[in-house]
Amino acid sequence: MDYQELLNQVLEEVRPVLGQGKVASYIPALARVDPGQFGMALATVDGELFGVGDWRTPFSIQSISKVFTLALVLARDGDALWRRVGKEPSGNPFNSLVQLEYEHGIPRNPFINAGALVITDRLSSLTGDARGVLREFLRAESGNPSVDFDPVVAASEAEHGHRNAALAHFMAGYGNIENPVPNVLEHYFWQCSLAMSCADLARACGFLARHGRRVSGERLLTRSQAKQVNAIMLTCGTYDAAGEFAYRVGLPGKSGVGGGIVAIIPNRCGLCVWSPGLDARGNSVAGVEALDRFTTLTGLSVF
Amino acid sequence: MDYQELLNQVLEEVRPVLGQGKVASYIPALARVDPGQFGMALATVDGELFGVGDWRTPFSIQSISKVFTLALVLARDGDALWRRVGKEPSGNPFNSLVQLEYEHGIPRNPFINAGALVITDRLSSLTGDARGVLREFLRAESGNPSVDFDPVVAASEAEHGHRNAALAHFMAGYGNIENPVPNVLEHYFWQCSLAMSCADLARACGFLARHGRRVSGERLLTRSQAKQVNAIMLTCGTYDAAGEFAYRVGLPGKSGVGGGIVAIIPNRCGLCVWSPGLDARGNSVAGVEALDRFTTLTGLSVF
Amino acid sequence: MDYQELLNQVLEEVRPVLGQGKVASYIPALARVDPGQFGMALATVDGELFGVGDWRTPFSIQSISKVFTLALVLARDGDALWRRVGKEPSGNPFNSLVQLEYEHGIPRNPFINAGALVITDRLSSLTGDARGVLREFLRAESGNPSVDFDPVVAASEAEHGHRNAALAHFMAGYGNIENPVPNVLEHYFWQCSLAMSCADLARACGFLARHGRRVSGERLLTRSQAKQVNAIMLTCGTYDAAGEFAYRVGLPGKSGVGGGIVAIIPNRCGLCVWSPGLDARGNSVAGVEALDRFTTLTGLSVF
Amino acid sequence: MDYQELLNQVLEEVRPVLGQGKVASYIPALARVDPGQFGMALATVDGELFGVGDWRTPFSIQSISKVFTLALVLARDGDALWRRVGKEPSGNPFNSLVQLEYEHGIPRNPFINAGALVITDRLSSLTGDARGVLREFLRAESGNPSVDFDPVVAASEAEHGHRNAALAHFMAGYGNIENPVPNVLEHYFWQCSLAMSCADLARACGFLARHGRRVSGERLLTRSQAKQVNAIMLTCGTYDAAGEFAYRVGLPGKSGVGGGIVAIIPNRCGLCVWSPGLDARGNSVAGVEALDRFTTLTGLSVF
Repeated sequence: MDYQELLNQVLEEVRPVLGQGKVASYIPALARVDPGQFGMALATVDGELFGVGDWRTPFSIQSISKVFTLALVLARDGDALWRRVGKEPSGNPFNSLVQLEYEHGIPRNPFINAGALVITDRLSSLTGDARGVLREFLRAESGNPSVDFDPVVAASEAEHGHRNAALAHFMAGYGNIENPVPNVLEHYFWQCSLAMSCADLARACGFLARHGRRVSGERLLTRSQAKQVNAIMLTCGTYDAAGEFAYRVGLPGKSGVGGGIVAIIPNRCGLCVWSPGLDARGNSVAGVEALDRFTTLTGLSVF
Repeated sequence: MDYQELLNQVLEEVRPVLGQGKVASYIPALARVDPGQFGMALATVDGELFGVGDWRTPFSIQSISKVFTLALVLARDGDALWRRVGKEPSGNPFNSLVQLEYEHGIPRNPFINAGALVITDRLSSLTGDARGVLREFLRAESGNPSVDFDPVVAASEAEHGHRNAALAHFMAGYGNIENPVPNVLEHYFWQCSLAMSCADLARACGFLARHGRRVSGERLLTRSQAKQVNAIMLTCGTYDAAGEFAYRVGLPGKSGVGGGIVAIIPNRCGLCVWSPGLDARGNSVAGVEALDRFTTLTGLSVF
Repeated sequence: MDYQELLNQVLEEVRPVLGQGKVASYIPALARVDPGQFGMALATVDGELFGVGDWRTPFSIQSISKVFTLALVLARDGDALWRRVGKEPSGNPFNSLVQLEYEHGIPRNPFINAGALVITDRLSSLTGDARGVLREFLRAESGNPSVDFDPVVAASEAEHGHRNAALAHFMAGYGNIENPVPNVLEHYFWQCSLAMSCADLARACGFLARHGRRVSGERLLTRSQAKQVNAIMLTCGTYDAAGEFAYRVGLPGKSGVGGGIVAIIPNRCGLCVWSPGLDARGNSVAGVEALDRFTTLTGLSVF
Repeated sequence: MDYQELLNQVLEEVRPVLGQGKVASYIPALARVDPGQFGMALATVDGELFGVGDWRTPFSIQSISKVFTLALVLARDGDALWRRVGKEPSGNPFNSLVQLEYEHGIPRNPFINAGALVITDRLSSLTGDARGVLREFLRAESGNPSVDFDPVVAASEAEHGHRNAALAHFMAGYGNIENPVPNVLEHYFWQCSLAMSCADLARACGFLARHGRRVSGERLLTRSQAKQVNAIMLTCGTYDAAGEFAYRVGLPGKSGVGGGIVAIIPNRCGLCVWSPGLDARGNSVAGVEALDRFTTLTGLSVF
């Protein structure tokens, strides 16, 4: 396939929806972003890279970081991890707390905030420096040594982080947080603040397209673990729209409120699309549309 | 591929788990079933049929019926259907009622009981005879004119159906049930009581492998609608184990407490496996294992 | 005390709020009532009767009936009753269903609808005719042989009774309903439809002011049981405003959406006030105000 | 009445249940207490003091402190306080978080932990030193200048305080906490650690028996505010047993997991009873029994 041509065509097709949706506004650093931006990148498993639009512009990766911390912990803990966090979808957000109570402090999956906090907690225990290890990993996989945190965003997250603090303390009350809650929160807020471009992210998620092998060829995850991550992305990766995303796009994907979405075509490539305008469920309007167009044009969807 | 050889091998590999799990016991008619039984069938999109074990033995299809009623309503109502039922996973069963209240009587998806009741209600409105239309459809698609309801099972369901009655009345209070509740329940209990074999079901779900075309070639669903059904099966088809099933099997599937599971390999075949012993989440132990073996042997999983 | 004078003065003091609030509108029979009406009656433990305003006008007693069915069952079952229903307040109405699920089908108290359905169910089992026994009791206690059901209201309740049907089936699924659900519902809807005046109700609740003795002198409840009923009225008798009612009025009371409220001054009298305009929590605006005035004028409140 | 004689008799009557129940064990400092202890004190509105058993032994007042912080804030804020916390019972503890979410961070009443945290937060804002102001107040009202915090208990509370931290952060996310969460928690844990005897507490709650007047004659609360506090004690003061307590004791009361209970007889006296063994709902077994005996012997109950 001529990927560059495909990306060009996708850009043409999504032009009508560019600027639609609302930029995340719960922290000022995100609210200031120009909503009309759009970028998309594709990195093949062999290292080729294609892009279109603002594909070199760094943005706040936010919840996309959860994919990478999950992989880093799974690589070290293996199935023991699943004693502390589930692998199942979680229903509407209203129920997050009651569900956590009903299931005695075990979050439903690693992509809801409670689950991601457990993962960051565990990564801290395993490495002593969750955010540092994450940054090193992303620099290596993206091939971009300047990938870094945004301290303004991290500080903003901390200031508006009461709900995450509540979740962490709640789980700590059940014994499901190992480190002091303020430390866990700090690492978590920093990981969310990472600034990366579509190019960076498309490459960085390549290990999932390569069934667990890093860009260096070294194995991070077993084949089976890579399948676990992909399956969780498909069923839980796009907030309360996983069913809709599965139908329209049909690929394992993970979105963030910064407007980015990564998606995986196993054996072929990692994809990343970015546009800051979000729909009511927190996913990039133009991003979902672009991935929908891409899988329709290529026939590469799962179903 | 030599499908018969594959099925034979799968049977050998699942032998160690045959008889594991617990047979559904909430109604006597199900509790009496011999737990050691196992059958598996595969029907290609071109009409070839393969089977192994007890693949000709009829069993109670239970919730598998929800796939077919969904398709029959979607074919008639199109996207208007999604105003009355969602397409998203639902979290743990404890939350089903509070979720229904929070979302004003709109069930999360067509495969939880509340959603299936809405579908049956709608099929009644559209056809005047939900259960009759369903039986005709399944006879035609399976090529087996003797497919029929089991009146003993249907009566048993009705006798133990208080929770379904509660759900139906609850939704009726929100105006999301069109027909008298007792009528909806009656059709629902009958549809669950349908007795079919693996051979019947593997053929009957072929229209989803053929992107919406019936065995006659006639189109039931548009391509897009067939994708919708498959996506809902993948994300919501196996009760509270959809994430686990996605990872292990990686195919759109739907299970029933009778011990059956249907699964779809788009463009290739419909599959049905049956073994009555259930795991803690209500899915056939040997059934999930068999599908896991099958996709591992063939590499035909989604991820 | 000169009760007549007191009631006259209360009427003067509540005039400014007469007509405030909204008449219950979920069934047409209630929605048609003139909101400007107001009546209040006081029946002493020795049989004297005083009244003011529309105190002789019958209105729909609705949930006030729950006090009487509770007493009739408690008289027969004693403490065994508390195995099927609790005695504790229930929090906001949103939680009624999740609470019922969490507590395995045991309602929190006899005055939420779920609890009242259990009581009616039990009264049916004990007497064979819950509504008939209730009517006889109320005719005897009120001294008014024409107390009767309103078939239009009863039919209306049944037509809009899906939520009560859901509750009853839900509890039946837990084994906490003994009779067929439709029978229980029918008796329940009839009991809610009883039409009585302030005069009737002030006399009819006299047994609670007499620590359990009926108007005939015969004992219905033990002293201790009468205290139980009074305590439940104080803590759970006015929907989600029991705390507010306890502070403002400080008497055991029970309200209904028809706009009536009964209240008990132990050893002295039964009170009933009626005015159809309801506040946001379902209690009569002028009714609560009148009881507030009355206890302030007499200093007869609990606190 | 001969109060001393009454207390002596109550002690005789409760002897059979002394030592029953389980001492609170979530923090070591409480778990070490001898469960066989029992004390009871009565302080009349005129300053007379009576006592029996271990009535001079200090114990951890825990949640009884919530009565005093409520009064101190209500005295300063008046009805404005009710914008930040409700006055209604809250149902079973399982629902505390979902209720808080449903009601947008406004706790149901000042005696559940969430509500007490709001009160402490407000007292901090109003006085700059919530715990210090509370200690001064209790020293003055009890007439015991040595009333003080127990630093071991306070530290223990902090160590096991994740659930309270979760509640505070959760409400802070809704804007219903004004001060930094760690500060609020610190003051809260200190206030719970106050060590006082039955004699101290019986006197200290006298202002509620005097309709708001302090021991000095100075008015703390208006008559109406004192009624508000009493009403909340009656409907919400004994965890999930308020209905039971209202029936058995029939007085405004507040219990703590240290085994203490204060109760108010308006116009007459403040009562305090203490015995460390708790029932399943967290109230002192012998304490409730003693108050039950006392009101039965004196006929002073509400009902």
